Amino acid sequence: HNPILAGLPVTVFERMSALARETGAINLGQGFPDDPGPLAVRKKAAEAVLEGSNQYPPMLGLAELRRAIVEHYARWQGVSLDAEREVMVTSGATEAIAASLFGLIEPGDEVVLFQPIYDAYLPLVRRAGGVPRFVTLRPPDWRLDEAAIRAALSPRTKAVLFNNPLNPTGTVFSREDLETLARALADSDAVLIADEVWEHVTFDGGAHVSALGVEGLADRAVKIGSAGKIFSMTGWKVGFVCAPPDILSTLARAHQFLTFTTPPNLQSAVAFGLAQEDEWIMDMRARLEAKRDRFSAGLTAVGFAPLPSAGTYFVNVDLSALGVADDAAFCERLVREAGVASIPVSTFYAEDAVTTVARFCFAKEDATLDEAVRRLEALR
Amino acid sequence: HNPILAGLPVTVFERMSALARETGAINLGQGFPDDPGPLAVRKKAAEAVLEGSNQYPPMLGLAELRRAIVEHYARWQGVSLDAEREVMVTSGATEAIAASLFGLIEPGDEVVLFQPIYDAYLPLVRRAGGVPRFVTLRPPDWRLDEAAIRAALSPRTKAVLFNNPLNPTGTVFSREDLETLARALADSDAVLIADEVWEHVTFDGGAHVSALGVEGLADRAVKIGSAGKIFSMTGWKVGFVCAPPDILSTLARAHQFLTFTTPPNLQSAVAFGLAQEDEWIMDMRARLEAKRDRFSAGLTAVGFAPLPSAGTYFVNVDLSALGVADDAAFCERLVREAGVASIPVSTFYAEDAVTTVARFCFAKEDATLDEAVRRLEALR
Ligand SMILES: CSCCC(=O)C(=O)O
Ligand SMILES: CSCCC(=O)C(=O)O
Repeated sequence: HNPILAGLPVTVFERMSALARETGAINLGQGFPDDPGPLAVRKKAAEAVLEGSNQYPPMLGLAELRRAIVEHYARWQGVSLDAEREVMVTSGATEAIAASLFGLIEPGDEVVLFQPIYDAYLPLVRRAGGVPRFVTLRPPDWRLDEAAIRAALSPRTKAVLFNNPLNPTGTVFSREDLETLARALADSDAVLIADEVWEHVTFDGGAHVSALGVEGLADRAVKIGSAGKIFSMTGWKVGFVCAPPDILSTLARAHQFLTFTTPPNLQSAVAFGLAQEDEWIMDMRARLEAKRDRFSAGLTAVGFAPLPSAGTYFVNVDLSALGVADDAAFCERLVREAGVASIPVSTFYAEDAVTTVARFCFAKEDATLDEAVRRLEALR
Repeated sequence: HNPILAGLPVTVFERMSALARETGAINLGQGFPDDPGPLAVRKKAAEAVLEGSNQYPPMLGLAELRRAIVEHYARWQGVSLDAEREVMVTSGATEAIAASLFGLIEPGDEVVLFQPIYDAYLPLVRRAGGVPRFVTLRPPDWRLDEAAIRAALSPRTKAVLFNNPLNPTGTVFSREDLETLARALADSDAVLIADEVWEHVTFDGGAHVSALGVEGLADRAVKIGSAGKIFSMTGWKVGFVCAPPDILSTLARAHQFLTFTTPPNLQSAVAFGLAQEDEWIMDMRARLEAKRDRFSAGLTAVGFAPLPSAGTYFVNVDLSALGVADDAAFCERLVREAGVASIPVSTFYAEDAVTTVARFCFAKEDATLDEAVRRLEALR
């Protein structure tokens, strides 16, 4: 049994969701919304299942979806992509990350990761034979620092894996941040794997700047997106990558043996959604922003210290104000005693973990958020 | 770029399907049926997309689907599995194979493969760090030989990857074959990865014997199944594995970072189908058996030499009778000049390839099969 993977626990998201199901706790751990997603998109999927083809679509994805992705980024990021050679559909963003790493990394290659790190990154880097190098982002603002990035680079750096907006901190990196990254990478051949699955979950009018639109990054970027996150249907597992043709064709070699394709009925519904549902996306932002505010205010009112969140489904709570030093133990108590599941942010670290922050998903019915606040108050 | 994957061509299935789309050829290459799949199952999926949850299901799959899989094999194979600890849903059988290899193989471990080999196996074995050992099956009957298998085993053998029914030959291995395999493995700790995606596509009343039901194999078997193949909807990409608990938990560690989960709407429809559609499965066999016979008779009538097929969507043609020595060149001519896409069987070999056989998918409308025969006649 492969020690890199077999030695790992079940992901913290799965474990917390299972615990929430068992104990009947309110699940603010794993990031998924109560919102059912746009009805017109679900209707389209239902129609396609009944009347469309249910056979293998092309390995790179349906042509109509690849075109819709290109048009989406022309509108939202002002960039121009080639639907035939620069876009590939994947079975969720996780598969896109796996295909990127298995396709790009040779054993011994270095991969730069930013802490806090999404949980799948490090096991996949290691399983692909990569050697991780960490850049640790610092609270309260988690900005990028050119010197710190340069210090992690070497002639062996094959890839830099960068999540923007950043899960779990809710940071949306600015154009200046991306330009800092571009400067830091200027002398490197590294591919930038830009996990941008939260791109549309941004608040306060702050627009997401994609690596696709930044000079010095665009020509080396594997941009990863997720229809599940764009349309609040995390179970759909329709992801995609945009990358320069030579990089894309390498990723396709991995994709063809990881899942080969993604259900065509869901693909055509996502194509429809990307073409028709810009307004739904704007409304989703407003709804989630209101939830962020409601939940943060509730937390504050009962004596917790929420941190700012500019994007994602998550708000973090600084537990140090409560004298808590072990977030994992705290989150365990929270789910078992208070009936609220959350995620300890320490699990997003490979070294030098921050151990005083808990992450809460606020993409839930208002009544659920209010009840969670009541339960948290009881615990304090 | 990883040389194991980046150095490979696009899969032959994808390439031939793309060529068929471009040239307007009849596509008897990639294996997918014209049958739209059971209507009740598609209705269930449409319903679930509209009314069910579209969020992350449990990482191992929906409980209802895991139970339906257990009941399916209780009925069809007389075996008893534990839905909680021995079943996992995957994003197609390809992902199940990837999760098995990435989860089980450490660099340097040996993996036994049977030639002809399905195209994804060898790249995945190599990318996982495994060292392939080949057992070559011989026409006309492709039976298992204990001595040949023993000769490929060593103390470093971690896994044996076995496809039954066998694509591309259409061989359905008998209970005696499986007992031969069990005897050959008796002194080995190797895991048997049993790719049984074609289990229900069998003809002439011959029942498929699963590794799950054979002493000496069951306790080491990773049984892989595919709802896409069971219900003639290859695009659904809902696969599953059944394995002893300790092996399954290792595979889950890989699965959670390859795709994490599979769309819940399709999962619940498959659960419904496995519970309700045994009769549809029997009818599908009869329909496909008739197509095999029709197409084989047609081929014979125009001077081709079809080989027997006891299962799968495929019938092979022995080209040596036509004086053809290069199946790849022949299939290329066939698609470009005659307008019929097929697959050269030589692509299923890593060494000592058989180069005189072409594979045709007969899971098509009768009119399409008849037209393909006409076109083939014109070429001869
Ligand atoms: C794949 S489960 C994790 C979902 C998610 O993005 C999160 O909770 O951080
Ligand atoms: C994943 S495309 C190949 C489908 C298939 O099983 C075949 O044609 O052999």
